Amino acid sequence: MSLKGNCIIGQSGGPTSVINASLYGVIREAEQSADIGRIYGALHGVEGMIGGNVVDLECEQKAAIEGLRYTPGAALGGCRYMLSSDDPADRDMLRILDLLERLDIRYLFYIGGNDSMDTALKIHQACRRAGREIRVMGIPKTVDNDLPCTHHCPGYGSAAKYIAASVREAWLHAEAMQTCETVTVLVTVGRNTGWLPAASALARNAPDQAPHIICFPEISFDTEVFLARVDEIHQRVGGVFIVTGEGLTTASGDYVAARRNILCTDAFGHPELGGVGEYLKELIESKLGLHTRVIKPDICQQAAMHFASATDRDEAILVGREAVRRALAGESGRMVTLAVSTDGEYRVRASSVDLNEVANVERQVPREMINEAGDHVTKALLDYVRPLIQGEVQVPLINGLPDYVRLGKIRVPLR
Amino acid sequence: MSLKGNCIIGQSGGPTSVINASLYGVIREAEQSADIGRIYGALHGVEGMIGGNVVDLECEQKAAIEGLRYTPGAALGGCRYMLSSDDPADRDMLRILDLLERLDIRYLFYIGGNDSMDTALKIHQACRRAGREIRVMGIPKTVDNDLPCTHHCPGYGSAAKYIAASVREAWLHAEAMQTCETVTVLVTVGRNTGWLPAASALARNAPDQAPHIICFPEISFDTEVFLARVDEIHQRVGGVFIVTGEGLTTASGDYVAARRNILCTDAFGHPELGGVGEYLKELIESKLGLHTRVIKPDICQQAAMHFASATDRDEAILVGREAVRRALAGESGRMVTLAVSTDGEYRVRASSVDLNEVANVERQVPREMINEAGDHVTKALLDYVRPLIQGEVQVPLINGLPDYVRLGKIRVPLR
Repeated sequence: MSLKGNCIIGQSGGPTSVINASLYGVIREAEQSADIGRIYGALHGVEGMIGGNVVDLECEQKAAIEGLRYTPGAALGGCRYMLSSDDPADRDMLRILDLLERLDIRYLFYIGGNDSMDTALKIHQACRRAGREIRVMGIPKTVDNDLPCTHHCPGYGSAAKYIAASVREAWLHAEAMQTCETVTVLVTVGRNTGWLPAASALARNAPDQAPHIICFPEISFDTEVFLARVDEIHQRVGGVFIVTGEGLTTASGDYVAARRNILCTDAFGHPELGGVGEYLKELIESKLGLHTRVIKPDICQQAAMHFASATDRDEAILVGREAVRRALAGESGRMVTLAVSTDGEYRVRASSVDLNEVANVERQVPREMINEAGDHVTKALLDYVRPLIQGEVQVPLINGLPDYVRLGKIRVPLR
Repeated sequence: MSLKGNCIIGQSGGPTSVINASLYGVIREAEQSADIGRIYGALHGVEGMIGGNVVDLECEQKAAIEGLRYTPGAALGGCRYMLSSDDPADRDMLRILDLLERLDIRYLFYIGGNDSMDTALKIHQACRRAGREIRVMGIPKTVDNDLPCTHHCPGYGSAAKYIAASVREAWLHAEAMQTCETVTVLVTVGRNTGWLPAASALARNAPDQAPHIICFPEISFDTEVFLARVDEIHQRVGGVFIVTGEGLTTASGDYVAARRNILCTDAFGHPELGGVGEYLKELIESKLGLHTRVIKPDICQQAAMHFASATDRDEAILVGREAVRRALAGESGRMVTLAVSTDGEYRVRASSVDLNEVANVERQVPREMINEAGDHVTKALLDYVRPLIQGEVQVPLINGLPDYVRLGKIRVPLR
C-alpha cells in the first residue's frame, strides 16, 4: 500500500469557523508520514490547481500552523468553481493533472461540502482514467450540515452554538421591548435544509421563550397557517421570535422570497432583492400590523470563532487527520465521515464513504426531528445537536479582540 | 440633605448588554443606604409608573440580582414612551405623581438614552412644580454613544467590541471568497451618529484589511464618490468590506434608504422596506456588477453579552452606584456622566450634568475623528474607543450556552 510522493490540500465552498482546523489536522498528520514528502496548498481550491497557484505549507511559521486551530475563514481561500467533466482530456482537468504531475503529488485532500465532493470525485475519476496513482480524499465541511452518510458535518456545531446563543440573547432584548417592538425574525443560512434554524431551539430553556416558530425549508410555507400562529403567540406571549432558513418554498415549490420579486420589481432589475427575512417582515406588518425586525447574521455565523464549539473544532481536526491516515492506508475516492455511539455518552469515531454517495447529495432534516405542526423541533433534534455545541475554543485576545493568524503563502514557482 | 423614603428604578429605550449592570449598581448602592427604604422597579420604565406595574426588587433571589451583572436585555423591560408634558396636571404625570406618593418614593433612577433623559427631566420638573421633594437621577445608557456631556456611554463599549470582532471574523471569511463574492456590507445600529460603524475600525490590524469603507451618518452620502472608492478597492485589494450606520443621508438631507422606496414601491405599500444595506447592495451590484452580501446583526449587537466588554460592564455598574450616591447627597434633575483622564493611562471617574443639557440632544462623531475623505476614522477615534472594549465579561455557561438570569418580578399591589 506504500506510495511515496507529495500531497496537496484544497479548501472549497464557503468557509466555516473550523475549516482551518481540518487543514491543521491534514498538515500535522501528513508531517508524521514517511511516505508523504512536501505538503502543498492550492489557493482557492481547484481554482489554484487549474491556475497553478500553489503554496508550500512547509515554509509557514510554526505559530501560523498552530493558529489554524482557532482562526476562522479559509486560510488557503475557498471557491465555488465546479468542474464540468471527469475526462482527463477536459481543459480544466488537463491543467490539474499536469500540476499534480509536476509537483509529484500522490495524495490530494479536498475539504468542502456537497459541491466540493463532486470536484474531489471528478479528480479521483480522471486520475483513474488517466492511469495516475493518486489518492484523493474528501474531508467534510459545512455549516449547513447537509452532507449524507455522516452523523453530522464539522462546521455545523460551531454555527449552531453561535445561533442558539444569539437567539437566547436577542430574545432577552426583544422580550424587554415587546410592548412596542413585537416580532423578531432571525434568518440563518441554509437554502434547502433547516439544520441551522432547528439548532436555534437550544436557546429555549423554558416554555414560551424564543424561538417560538422555526421555518424549515423542508416544510411547505403556508401563509395563512403561519400568520395564525404568529397571531396566537402574540396574543399569548406578547413578543414573537421566529427563526427561518433562507430557502422557504410554497406548496408549489417556489421560493417565497423569489415570489416577492414578482410583486416588487426593483429599480435596478436585480433578481436577488429582498430575501426571506424582508418577505416575512412585510407579510406580518401588512397582515397583522405587528412591528417586525429582521436579524441577518449572514457570514458571521460561519466565522464566529469567538464563540465556537470546542467539540466541533476537535472533530474538524480529527477528520483532517483521518483523511491522511486512510489515504496512507490505500483509500481513495472516499470522504471521511463521523459516526456517533448511541449508548448515552457522546462518543464519535471516524469512518469513510464512497464519494459517489455524497457528491451533490443534500440531506434534509428528517421529519421525526420536526414537530407535527412543522414549526418547531422534537426532542430527537435537541438530543442530536446538543452534544455538538459543547465546549468553547480558546482564542488568544489582544487589546480586547481575537488575534487570528494569517499564512505567509510562499508560492511554488511553476513556470 | 438627608431624605428618607423609598426608591424606584426604571429602564428605558432599547436595552444594551450592560443596562442590567447599571440596575445592579443602583440596587446594591441603595441597599447600603440608611435613608432608602424599599427598592421598587417600574416595569417598562415610565409605562410601568403610569400603569401601576411595579415590582418589589427586595423580593428577588440573591442569585438573580447578582446575575444582572452578566445578563443582557432589560430585566425590568424597556419602553419608547415619551411624556408629552412636565405639567403636574398632565394626565400621565398625575398618575406618575400619584404612584410616587403611594409608594412613598423619594428617589427615582432612570436608566436610558437621550429620549429617556427627557422623561427623567419632565418628572423632575413636575415634582418641583408640584412641591414634591423627590430626587430624580438619570443614568446614561446607549450603544449609539450619542449622549452629550459624557466622554462615552455605557453600552457602547460592548457593542463596539462585538462589532469589531465580527468585522474581523467576517473579513477572514469574505477575503477567502473574494474571487466569487466580492463586496460585504455590514449595517450597524445608529440612525444619526456613526459611533458604532467607526468602532469597526478596530478590526483592522494591517493595511487593506476590513473595514475598507466606513459610511457615517455625519457625512453626506455621495453615490459617485462611493462607487469610485468601491471600484478602487476592488481593483487593488480584491474584496471590499463596508461598514455603515443606518441613517445615511444625501447632501439634501434625505435618507438614502427612504429614497429607495420611491424607486420601488413594495406590494404592501409599507414604508420601511429595504434599508441602507439593501440600498448599497443594489447600487453596487447594478452599477459595478460586483456580488454584494449584507450582514445585519441588528439587536444582537445590543445583546451579545457572550463577548461584551468588562470595562463597559464595570462602568455601567459605576454609573448606577454613582446615581444613588449623588441623589443621597442632594442632587436631582441631573444625569451621571463619565470623564476620562488624558494622561496616557485610562482612568475613568463619574460626574454629573443638568438633565436640560442632555435631554433630546445627540452628539455626533467629531469631524477630527473622521478622515479627510469622510470614509474612515483617524487615530483620534481609535485612541478614543480602544480602552472601552478591554476585558471580557465572564458569563456562566451551561450545556455550551450562556446561562442568564430572570427576575421573579413580584408585583406590588396598588389597587
